[in-house]
Amino acid sequence: MKRIPINTLAQHTNETLTIEGFVENIRNLQYVQFLILKDETGKVQITIEKNEENQELTSIVDNLSLESTIRVTGTVFENEKVKLNGREVVPERIVVTSFSEKELPLAIKDKENALRETRLDYRFLDLRREENYLFFKCQTLLEMALREYWIKEGYLEIHSPKISAKAAESGAEVFSLDYFGQKACLSQSPQFYKQMAMSSGFNRVFEIGPAFRAENSHTSYHATEINMADVEISWIQSEEDVMEEEENLLRYALTRLKDTYGEEIKEKFGVEISDVSNPFPRITFEQAKKILKEEFGYIGENKEDFERKEENLLCEYAKEKYHSDFLFVTAYPFSARPFYHMLDEKGLTKSYDLLFKGIEITTGSQRENRIDILEKQVKEKGIALEDLSFYLEFFRYGCPPHGGFAIGIARLMMQIFEMDNIREATFIYRGPTRLNP
Amino acid sequence: MKRIPINTLAQHTNETLTIEGFVENIRNLQYVQFLILKDETGKVQITIEKNEENQELTSIVDNLSLESTIRVTGTVFENEKVKLNGREVVPERIVVTSFSEKELPLAIKDKENALRETRLDYRFLDLRREENYLFFKCQTLLEMALREYWIKEGYLEIHSPKISAKAAESGAEVFSLDYFGQKACLSQSPQFYKQMAMSSGFNRVFEIGPAFRAENSHTSYHATEINMADVEISWIQSEEDVMEEEENLLRYALTRLKDTYGEEIKEKFGVEISDVSNPFPRITFEQAKKILKEEFGYIGENKEDFERKEENLLCEYAKEKYHSDFLFVTAYPFSARPFYHMLDEKGLTKSYDLLFKGIEITTGSQRENRIDILEKQVKEKGIALEDLSFYLEFFRYGCPPHGGFAIGIARLMMQIFEMDNIREATFIYRGPTRLNP
Repeated sequence: MKRIPINTLAQHTNETLTIEGFVENIRNLQYVQFLILKDETGKVQITIEKNEENQELTSIVDNLSLESTIRVTGTVFENEKVKLNGREVVPERIVVTSFSEKELPLAIKDKENALRETRLDYRFLDLRREENYLFFKCQTLLEMALREYWIKEGYLEIHSPKISAKAAESGAEVFSLDYFGQKACLSQSPQFYKQMAMSSGFNRVFEIGPAFRAENSHTSYHATEINMADVEISWIQSEEDVMEEEENLLRYALTRLKDTYGEEIKEKFGVEISDVSNPFPRITFEQAKKILKEEFGYIGENKEDFERKEENLLCEYAKEKYHSDFLFVTAYPFSARPFYHMLDEKGLTKSYDLLFKGIEITTGSQRENRIDILEKQVKEKGIALEDLSFYLEFFRYGCPPHGGFAIGIARLMMQIFEMDNIREATFIYRGPTRLNP
Repeated sequence: MKRIPINTLAQHTNETLTIEGFVENIRNLQYVQFLILKDETGKVQITIEKNEENQELTSIVDNLSLESTIRVTGTVFENEKVKLNGREVVPERIVVTSFSEKELPLAIKDKENALRETRLDYRFLDLRREENYLFFKCQTLLEMALREYWIKEGYLEIHSPKISAKAAESGAEVFSLDYFGQKACLSQSPQFYKQMAMSSGFNRVFEIGPAFRAENSHTSYHATEINMADVEISWIQSEEDVMEEEENLLRYALTRLKDTYGEEIKEKFGVEISDVSNPFPRITFEQAKKILKEEFGYIGENKEDFERKEENLLCEYAKEKYHSDFLFVTAYPFSARPFYHMLDEKGLTKSYDLLFKGIEITTGSQRENRIDILEKQVKEKGIALEDLSFYLEFFRYGCPPHGGFAIGIARLMMQIFEMDNIREATFIYRGPTRLNP
């Protein structure tokens, strides 16, 4: 008999059917046994009267432990005495499909009472919390919405390689491996390959895939393995086209999320999905530094980039002045940017960061697609042309004007849900001291 | 001015607009210049009369090389003398957005005239062939169709980690790396983590992501980095539920592909998308061996698995007898299968392979979810329990009955398009001797 999701039982009153789930609670009383059965959609009470006829069922429940999984065939009754939705299932058959050990290493529902590290050690139990199911349901929808947007706009999906030959200049921040005797490394980003797709005439591409950073960072928003949503688009006129595309993409995805799960998110996380109906405000890097000084009396140590604190203040400013959780900052100095960002006539990069609730979630730009200027910029950054020779090839036989951006999925989700740590926003987190499970 | 795709020019006769693309052909005659401009949607002729007024345009074309990219602003005219769609654009402005070197390392359109290895060296040029754009358009649709099916059926998307702690017993077929002083390896499959999601109560999950195989295989259908579509579903009754799910999934995706691009694929690849209207036939491993012997007089050397030749013959049989390109083979002996496949009462695995046009594209099964039996099977395979301890934990605190399967995207696409080599079906191929570009 096919399993019925528990949240649809209201449509099956007085019917005999099968439900399956985890045993969330057991009350074994003198004359009756109550179970709470939980699946990914909801919970229901199972009621077993202790009588002659039910001996077998009763003995199954006597030996049952919490978190075991069972298959229950029984009849659904409305019963106003039952607190949980006024409904119960009276079973005729129970099959224990897996037994749980009696002692759990973690009180699943009691998030605050376990150390985060313990919860990460037993992430598979921690994920049983209802909020986590909702969280990943939302992440699923968010990614699907991104892809719906891309498909509608004629993008191709690519899967760029994650193992590549190691360039001599690769820094300590890449993971190295032996590849049949050759030196190879794990991809830090699909950057070069999504640009390659532009050179191949693919027009517009997207990829959601892993990227690897061997940085020894222990912050609340870094991880050594992240999943990135990468975009690259051709035939643009300037970085404005890239920003417009990202804004449209995020507007579409966040609206989908709000429409579908907005209420549930408010209820379980106490968070309102950001209003994206207005255009995202845009200020230049220079303006931003001026605002920090004049509005907040804050002068950061780094003149050519922002500290976390400055990103925070700028988002405060955008919220107050433009009622926006998002803020584009444009025209960063070349010193703060990679060699492939295109420069404008003033020597500033045609690039931007997108800040969201106090943190940078994207760097985007128009890329330099003219080989002569690109080589010049490589040299200006002190990189040997030979180290980038495979990449530079992409620009020798025609390459459209193009640009793009990347969004870290977990960081975006963490900010949407106003979580305090990326570890909570990742299915399985990887950091310098965390390689398990 | 926003770029107009070339295949929509028919709707813009006598309008002035902007098109952009690669220069596919140049004919520089005495009184006139003709260019063929190509974008990802089509081609159009650009016509420039050599007169006083057009001096600037003429000199731009004089200095233009094939495969350069240009932005053309001009007027669209119907002209029945023009062979290419009876249409031309008469430009008022041409901007060269990137120059190509005059000598190409590869005659892009002439696939047969270049060695495959040369084409792979210059994959970014090889991908400019129209068939390749169609191929990746189809792959994009296929993956999107898979996801549409999964979303409709209530799946969650996961991104399992690609770096994990290295188990002592890991064979030579995994890539190893140093992880901040710890021994780590690249994931060969999301198997353990998608099963973990079942233990977390995630019900049904999917993932499309990379998997890494350090096998020194040089066949036409192996790669060291592949992209897998992975599925795991809970609360199943047997492997039949898994097979039904995979069949429904593939039926949905192939039907979407046929409906959308069937005609174009037939035209460019000479291939008909497989008919999936009938149920996929199912035979047991034992029956399959009998058929091979009795129908083909073929007895393979390996009694407990199939050789390529046998897979070929079985597909021949399925095509002839059931008019099906797909064939499920079930009930493989345990010796041919991993430790986590569940066994039936006869000691055979509750598993299957799905063969498609002569090659195995999937292994699926119900998994053993009962910790005591699972540990027994681990030992039977001669694996130390300690080496799997993190995985075995997933089964100690309740874990639903579950099963799943995985499909290699490139291998599936290669078979759909009847290509002779997986290298042609991969955006950037990785093999033991191929780590570039």
